[in-house]
Amino acid sequence: MSNQPTVRIAVIGLNHYHIYHLVDVLVEAGADLASYFAVEDDLAGQFSQRYPQARRAGHIRQVLEDESIQVVVCAAIPDERAHIGVQAMQHGKDFFVDKPGFTTLEQVSTARQAHADTGRTFSVGYGRLTSKAMNRAGALIKGGAIGRPLQTIGLGPHRLNAAKRPDWFFERKRYGGIIADLGTHLVDQFLYFTGSSSAEVVTAQVGNYNHPQYPELEDFGDAVLRGDSGQTGYLRVDWFTPDGLGTFGDQRLIVTGTDGYIEVRGTCDLAGRPGGQHLFLVDQTGVQYLDCRNEEVEFGERFLDDVRHRTQIAIDQDHCFRVAELTLSAQDAAQAIPT
Amino acid sequence: MSNQPTVRIAVIGLNHYHIYHLVDVLVEAGADLASYFAVEDDLAGQFSQRYPQARRAGHIRQVLEDESIQVVVCAAIPDERAHIGVQAMQHGKDFFVDKPGFTTLEQVSTARQAHADTGRTFSVGYGRLTSKAMNRAGALIKGGAIGRPLQTIGLGPHRLNAAKRPDWFFERKRYGGIIADLGTHLVDQFLYFTGSSSAEVVTAQVGNYNHPQYPELEDFGDAVLRGDSGQTGYLRVDWFTPDGLGTFGDQRLIVTGTDGYIEVRGTCDLAGRPGGQHLFLVDQTGVQYLDCRNEEVEFGERFLDDVRHRTQIAIDQDHCFRVAELTLSAQDAAQAIPT
Repeated sequence: MSNQPTVRIAVIGLNHYHIYHLVDVLVEAGADLASYFAVEDDLAGQFSQRYPQARRAGHIRQVLEDESIQVVVCAAIPDERAHIGVQAMQHGKDFFVDKPGFTTLEQVSTARQAHADTGRTFSVGYGRLTSKAMNRAGALIKGGAIGRPLQTIGLGPHRLNAAKRPDWFFERKRYGGIIADLGTHLVDQFLYFTGSSSAEVVTAQVGNYNHPQYPELEDFGDAVLRGDSGQTGYLRVDWFTPDGLGTFGDQRLIVTGTDGYIEVRGTCDLAGRPGGQHLFLVDQTGVQYLDCRNEEVEFGERFLDDVRHRTQIAIDQDHCFRVAELTLSAQDAAQAIPT
Repeated sequence: MSNQPTVRIAVIGLNHYHIYHLVDVLVEAGADLASYFAVEDDLAGQFSQRYPQARRAGHIRQVLEDESIQVVVCAAIPDERAHIGVQAMQHGKDFFVDKPGFTTLEQVSTARQAHADTGRTFSVGYGRLTSKAMNRAGALIKGGAIGRPLQTIGLGPHRLNAAKRPDWFFERKRYGGIIADLGTHLVDQFLYFTGSSSAEVVTAQVGNYNHPQYPELEDFGDAVLRGDSGQTGYLRVDWFTPDGLGTFGDQRLIVTGTDGYIEVRGTCDLAGRPGGQHLFLVDQTGVQYLDCRNEEVEFGERFLDDVRHRTQIAIDQDHCFRVAELTLSAQDAAQAIPT
């Protein structure tokens, strides 16, 4: 434990199980989980079992108006998240939310304004910052290991698990679209690894290939992006991970540079090494496999330091908004694939 | 050796070293290499050392007008290939050419007409048909191993080796553009593995990121394609293979289906298994690695049988033209990346 003052956090919205990951990251870094609010008794019951120290609030106002709470963590239904975040910020709290943080560009604009007005931060858990292999890739690329990065390819397949999903999961307005949802990770990686500060959507498309029983589900999406310095990115997301794979999806990132390339196999190495966090580096001198499972990642600690000191070391607020804007622009621009 | 009559072949154009692969495929299948024509003495000398049985013709007409020759094999400079092919067909010969077979859509149109007029075939060596892992992937996918194929991703990085390249390699009009050249493999794979009979170019882009000394070189290109049944394809080609990789490039194909996916690592398995021809199959029951190095591939035999019996078992003539048309349409549609 550090000698820093303890940061008190609370939770609003338990609708996605990612809430456990977000809370764990901060609790393991020393945060004090004080309370939570959720309207659903079943979700509250599970949460309470996992975190008996947290008091259930009877109303969202009890969390928002508790001046001892410095951070609100949120995994509400996606289209409700931004509004909760803006309320939290207006109550003087920082906000840490499951991806996607937003389902419309208007929501991002409102959150940007709230940040400007309050100085509080709206942070989205895009995943790169808590991934050991992604951290290593970032250090290598920023250190020049592959020369000038030119392109990212990000693949984000996921298992549908339809029977276990709540109704809102299949409602387009609520989940925001497949690129807006799953694509956030890959847009974040594109902007970060290519060093692009802004980008345009060259093309995007979404479709429902194989789930007519869920007419508002998009089970496939992809996009080509182009950054302000000409670097490009391709991303594909889908809900087609087969049951035979031992993880939710075979997440890949390939970054091609002028003098080498990196492949991150974040979740698995097909018929190969166990576990995840695999990194392959090919440069002018050879091919290296880097096992990143023991990489130090201090995102939680840095996040809490940002809360204490009003810094943006863990998360760059503007980058966070730009990822959302580019992702939602791609979703809005997406052509419907005739399937 | 088979009991079939021997097929006599000849070569016109030695400008790309792929000629050795094309000739070997047919000679190993029993063809009789009778003669060759090339204006370049140095290239002719190398060829003659490798194939001492082949007589050097003093003029292209000596090959074209030799009625004993049934097949002309060609690796001339790309923009000359189609015209040589049409001449060969008009002289009653089948034509087997290194990719790209064409550098303009007009050339494809002319070759289509020559095929209609003469009944001779214009076959391009796109590589899939001689690849063991691609053959295995084809059999698996056609057999339903991944359900309905929805998307292909093809990555075709290559090593530039600039110092060893002839002048024409850097002249846009002569090599045709990076998608037109390297992209042919990936377009062929897209049409074949998705079962698309036609397709449109959703987007394409090309650029010269890092070779200002070769202003007409395109060192990067990518494209999104969409087939007539809605299946999509993404392809990327580049000249950025770093020196540390043990092969010319890390060729990948990922085919995603409704019930599984296949990844082919055609040339190498990074920091993994030796050699190439690696196939990974993930379906509803598990993950399998399939070593395809011992896969039987009888392309050469089938090609010669097609010559003998006027069939299209080895190569579907219409598919071959459609690959070229889609590839060149993508090249023509490609936006220039501001680099």
